[in-house]
Parts: sequence; C-alpha cells; structure tokens
Amino acid sequence: MRYVDIAIIGGGAAGMSAASRIKALRPDWNVMVFEKTDFVSHAPCGIPFYVSGFFEHFEELCTYDVNHFRNERGIDVHTRAKVVEVSEGSIVAEENGRERVYEWEKLLFATGAKAKRLNVQNEDLEGVIYVDDILSAERIKRSALKSERVVIIGSGYIGVEMAEAISRLGKKVTVIEISERPLPEYDAEIAAILKSEMDKIVELKLSERVVAFEGKDRIERVLTDKGEYKCDLAIVAVGVVPNVDLAKKLVKLGKSGAIKTNSRMETSKEGVYAAGDCAETINIVTGKPDWIHLATPANKMGYVAGVNMAGYELNYPGSVKCQITSFYNVEIGKAGLSEFEAIREGYEVVSAFVTTKSSAKYFQDGLIHLKVVANRNGKVLGVQAAGKGVSMRIYGATALLYKNADVRDLFFSDFPYYPPVSRVWDPLVVAARNLFRKLGMP
Amino acid sequence: MRYVDIAIIGGGAAGMSAASRIKALRPDWNVMVFEKTDFVSHAPCGIPFYVSGFFEHFEELCTYDVNHFRNERGIDVHTRAKVVEVSEGSIVAEENGRERVYEWEKLLFATGAKAKRLNVQNEDLEGVIYVDDILSAERIKRSALKSERVVIIGSGYIGVEMAEAISRLGKKVTVIEISERPLPEYDAEIAAILKSEMDKIVELKLSERVVAFEGKDRIERVLTDKGEYKCDLAIVAVGVVPNVDLAKKLVKLGKSGAIKTNSRMETSKEGVYAAGDCAETINIVTGKPDWIHLATPANKMGYVAGVNMAGYELNYPGSVKCQITSFYNVEIGKAGLSEFEAIREGYEVVSAFVTTKSSAKYFQDGLIHLKVVANRNGKVLGVQAAGKGVSMRIYGATALLYKNADVRDLFFSDFPYYPPVSRVWDPLVVAARNLFRKLGMP
Repeated sequence: MRYVDIAIIGGGAAGMSAASRIKALRPDWNVMVFEKTDFVSHAPCGIPFYVSGFFEHFEELCTYDVNHFRNERGIDVHTRAKVVEVSEGSIVAEENGRERVYEWEKLLFATGAKAKRLNVQNEDLEGVIYVDDILSAERIKRSALKSERVVIIGSGYIGVEMAEAISRLGKKVTVIEISERPLPEYDAEIAAILKSEMDKIVELKLSERVVAFEGKDRIERVLTDKGEYKCDLAIVAVGVVPNVDLAKKLVKLGKSGAIKTNSRMETSKEGVYAAGDCAETINIVTGKPDWIHLATPANKMGYVAGVNMAGYELNYPGSVKCQITSFYNVEIGKAGLSEFEAIREGYEVVSAFVTTKSSAKYFQDGLIHLKVVANRNGKVLGVQAAGKGVSMRIYGATALLYKNADVRDLFFSDFPYYPPVSRVWDPLVVAARNLFRKLGMP
Repeated sequence: MRYVDIAIIGGGAAGMSAASRIKALRPDWNVMVFEKTDFVSHAPCGIPFYVSGFFEHFEELCTYDVNHFRNERGIDVHTRAKVVEVSEGSIVAEENGRERVYEWEKLLFATGAKAKRLNVQNEDLEGVIYVDDILSAERIKRSALKSERVVIIGSGYIGVEMAEAISRLGKKVTVIEISERPLPEYDAEIAAILKSEMDKIVELKLSERVVAFEGKDRIERVLTDKGEYKCDLAIVAVGVVPNVDLAKKLVKLGKSGAIKTNSRMETSKEGVYAAGDCAETINIVTGKPDWIHLATPANKMGYVAGVNMAGYELNYPGSVKCQITSFYNVEIGKAGLSEFEAIREGYEVVSAFVTTKSSAKYFQDGLIHLKVVANRNGKVLGVQAAGKGVSMRIYGATALLYKNADVRDLFFSDFPYYPPVSRVWDPLVVAARNLFRKLGMP
C-alpha cells in the first residue's frame, strides 16, 4: 500500500495536462500517472500521417516522452501500469506482473476512448485492424506496406484521413460507409464536395453495411450487405466509445455513456475527476451535456481538472465541437452543428449555402463551399466548409460560436481582406447577408 | 436642375454598397452615384498584384463594372462626374464639361481617401508616382517595366506589397521608411520577422526621411537625410488621408479629420450620411472614435448607410481594425491594437510573445510568431502574427476581439487541431496560457 496525493488513470492528453498543471501549482504533491502502454501524451490524430510516411518514428506521435514528464515536471509516471480496480480511496494497478494498491487523496479518470467494435463474424481475423491507440499505427503501417488492396470501413475523420494515407502509399483503397455520405456528421451539400474528390482517388461505397470478414488464415474478403471486396488488409474506423469500464463502478455516467462531470471536471463523487475522451461535458452551442471526444478539448479539460484538483478554481465552459481535416485537395471543417444535427436538437433553423472563390477573383485559388446554420432568432448554430481556405473560416467560426454570436456578429466581425487569400465580402459575411434576408432583417 | 431621392458622391466600395442596398430595399427610388473616374466598385487593395502581373487587365480591380450596376441593380451611375460643390439639399456636378445641379433628398459622402503628400522638393517630377486610385496602377506598372531601379517610399501595407510586386518583376528595389521598422503599426518583435525577410530581397533603409527628388526631365535620384538613391521610378506610399474637401463645408469632422458619424452612419446633418474611407467610426477595441480606412469596413459602412438611408434601421458597431498581408514567405496579420498602440491609448498592458511551429512538429511547415496584448483585467486588446499559418489565427482573433473577449475566451475557443495545419495547443492558446500566468490566474 502506498499513499499518493493525486492518482491519474491514463497518460494521454488529458491525463498529462492535468498532471502538469497540478505539479506546476503544487510542486510538493505526489502526482502519479498510471499508463498501460509505454507511451504518454500520445496524440492519435497523427496516425494517418505516420502511416503515409510524413515521419519515420511513431514515437513522434507523443508530444513529449516519459522522461520529460518525470525529470522536467516531476510527475511520477508509471508505464505498463494497468489499473484493474478502482474503489473509494484506492486503486489496484498491475505492474510488472504484480498487483499493487495505491491510496489516493484525489483521483482523475483520463481513460480516453476505445474503438467501437463492428460485432461481425471474424473481426479478429489476422489483417483486420482497428484504429485505436498509437500502437495500432505501427501495425497498420507494417501491414499496409505489404498489401495491395486495402478496405477501410468507416468514413468519419479517421476513415477519410486513413483513405488518403493508404492511397498515398500506392495501394488500391476501397472505403465502405454505412451512411449515404462520407463524413456523415456534415450536411449533404458539404459532404458532396468531399465525395466527388474521394471518387477520383478511391472506391467509395456508400450505404453499405459490413456483415463479415472472410479468409483462411488472414483476411481475404470483406462482405457487405451488397457485395464483397477482396483485400489484404481491412482497417476499421467506425468511431469510438468512451472508455469507462473502470469508472462506471465508482461514478455516474451521463446520457452519452461518458462520465458525468460538472464545470470543474469533478464527477458525481467528491475528489474524483474526469477529463478527456472519457468525460461528458457541455456543448456550448446547445448548452446541453455532450460527449465531445477531441484532442484540444481533452487537453483543456485536463488543464481545468488539474487546476481544480490542485485546490484552485477554474471552470470549463464546454466545447463548440470544432474540427478540420482534408482529403487531397479538399479541406473540410466544421464548428458547431450541421443543419440536420440542429433539427435533431429541436431548433427551427435557417441556413445559407455559399459557393465562391476563396480569394479575390484574379487569383486562381479554387472554390470554397460554406454553409451557415442559424436558429430563427438569428443565433449562429454552426458553420461547415469544404474546398480551399477552410481553416481560417473555421477558426473565425469557432470563436464566434464560443461567444454565442448571432448572424449580425458574423456579418460585422471584420474578417480581413487580402486578395491572395480572402475576399472583400468574405464567404462567412455573404452567408450572414443571405441569412439576414431569410430572417427578414434589413 | 434635377431631383434625386439619393445622391451618392463616390463609386467605390462604400458608395456602391450603399447604392445597391438602397435599390434592393427601395426599388422605386432614384439612386444616383457620381463617380469622377470611369470605374466603380474599384478595390485598390489589388494594385500590387496587378503590378506584379497576377492578372492582365487592371479593370479586374473592379468587383463589378458600371453596366452591372446600371442594368442589374437599377442604379443611375454617372461616371466622369466630378462633384464640385455641395450644399444643403443640392450638389453641383461637372459632367462632359458642363456643370449640373441635382437636388437630393438624402446624400451620402463616399469620397474615400487620397494619398498623403510628402511635401518635398520636386515631388511632381516625371517618374514620381503616388499610389492612389486604380488609375495609378497602370502608370506604376508601365513605368516599372521600363525601369531598372525602383525606390519605394513608405513601408506600410501598400509599400510592403509594392516592394514584393516590383521585385517580382526583376527590378532592384530600395524601400525607404521613416520609422525604425517596416509596418510600423506592428510591435518590434513582429516587424523584425518581416524585416529579416525584406533584407533578403530588397534594400530596406530604416529611419530615413526623404527630403527631395532630383532629376533633369524625370526622376534620377531620391535624396534622404542620410544619403541618395539612384532610380528610374519612385513610388510613394506614405499613407492616406480622408478625402473630405467637399464634406467639410457641410458637416462636422471628427478628431481624426474624417467625417463624424453616428452608428447609423449619419453625419452631423440629418439626411446626410458618410461611409468608407472618408468616415470616422468606432474602434471596437477602444470604444473610441477612430478612422479605420480598410476595404471590408468600407463595404459594411456602405451597407449600413444604405439600410438607414432607405428608412430602415441598422447600426454599425465599428471595426476591430484587422488586416493581413505577406511579403514572399512571411505572412503578417494584426487584429486590434499592438502593444505600443495600447499603451498610447492609456491601457496598462500585459503581453505574450510566442514562437512555435505553425503545425504539428512532424510537419515541416515553418514557424509562426504571435503576440497577444491584453489589459490588466484580462481583456484582449490585440493579436499580431508573422510567419506561417497567420490568416487563420487572425480570423479567430478578429472574431474574439469583436465579441470583447478576454484571455480565458482565447484559451477556451476550441481552435481545431489538424496536424498538417495546426497544433493541439494552438499558438493563440499558448499565448493565453502565458497571459494567465502574468495576470496571476491559475
């Protein structure tokens, strides 16, 4: 039995941010992190870029290595330490084949998310790989290099990025998506832009459900409800679920299935906190609890949890839910809600869809397709874009959504004009003007 | 004598935006625009790109041509119509060599800005060209193509962009700046990044004052207080002043020298409005009157003036003053105040200067240098950046400044992480965190 001031389960973005914050504010406290792999502060967002060969060593997916946290920040990081039991005031961790008990004063769940399973026949066949923690990166890369045909199941962010990564290796790629469009959290107009780019480069099969994997010793075919696809490798990226196996015995979960937290990132139990992909927080646009499993919110939740665990006060306001990605020449981004998500949330909506050059007309910089969704009172609910010049519009949009902006704010926010990169009437502003009309504003 | 519902002096961004808005809301009204050149909706921001050859025809500097406004929007545009007199209820315009009187119900000054003069010896010498309206674009280009050595006087936005444009034509360029740094409205740390890029490509002379031009029939030498520079062309871009020659007889000017307006863009005289580079409005960051002569605010002021002149109500909130530009490989941008501007405005400030890669560490995308200035209460006063990935940070910053954000908002605004273009801790967020420390926040 050993006593620690702070026990943190999980050494990813949230866990290490919290640990760093606590040690910065309370240098004398004993802060212990239990990480089941060899790696900490791992950022799986980079996996597709490792696979496509942008960098050589998959350790680069880690922002810092273990020794940095140990030596520079004084955090007692235990790697290959799998927590197997959690109870009031103590945890049990398996380290070097032995179980050890640690008593904690305060506890943080930073257990992240895990890959959603397909639950179909033979999904454990050799050559069927789930995109999961950073260890899967190496398995995928090694296997992809030896393959000719690769099937990717799922076309969320990871599926789309993986499709580009694998096709960049010169492999024949088939993407199978159960919904009728890629990136199904986007509205159809925006997803259509991505679809037409994907169709040029990969075989994209929509509205198909994978029903089984087949093969003798290893994967040979993916079977769907509509056909079958030969392959040497099947990569499954059909989303993630919060990893709450340990937490659910100790603290309450929210509707989303992630751990319920308050704005201090404290769970239903005093002294027990949760942050990152395992935690439920607030969607700033809807004001309702939501599970937003993204890297930047995870880091900030960790930061906030750390401040509060250290005995100071900082509130996490929630997240706008903002992401950008790309597929070859098409950038894609979203902040807040798409139209169908807004309707599902019960909003009466208006929307404007704008297609325009991204920069001044005399620059050959390509088009941006941009959609803004607002409610009947003019409050902006979401911005989506595809094409060129997407990132900067999404940066502007997320800031406005964070500040609860309305369409008038969107119109007047002074987005700068510089002919090579933007327009005197920015697409965001044109969309706002269209919404003025639809809302009966002058 | 002829009666018009609306008379608009000046067919630039503000004038044509107002005219378009009025005709959209009041299709039956007679809206007449008096433009002294042959061109309307001219956007001089594009002049450097015309000079460097990004496009062939300088008419492309106009967003739309005259016929579009006449035929599609029903605006009665008079070109080559120089207004020579303005009085209560009427104006006198010189058209085709004759003076005509027009009686108006409502009047808009959209007379723009004009180049500031150096007031030194021989500034009217052949080969000394002021960057002024779009007609100067053609003169500069024609002259530059025939020149070997070009001196550019002034290194504000136009001076810097012109320096790149002319050097791209293969000419030897000398830039003479009176202040100790290029883009002197930026703080020294940011301007230093630009300076080092300029030093590679042009001869940049700082803290030098031009005292005279010399030459027999045309320019041969620019004389400064420190030396002399041989050249075949001298381009003067030392700023602009509001063009209020006509307006000052009828309405009040503000402290800045531009026309005083209220939030409806109405001047001191009922029924008389002003918009664009001739008008004074509010600086959103300081809350004080300011003269912000930029293209996007000009368009929006015109829009607002149009709505109010049409008898509806819309308030112009003011401008954050946001700009981006670039010089070869360095992008530069600013929203709100620099540190020295904030101090000059009387703020007690803290600031954070961050240098980091613009994207994830495994992408070789270059550095961004970013500075955030805040007051002692944590209110963000300004953001400046130079390097790579500048536009998107400035888009985010202008939205936050518009919404009166504090450093906590800057920290929590969910700027998205996508490894090829951004970082999990965005430089804006890192700067916010640095400011937490300086402000004693946890």
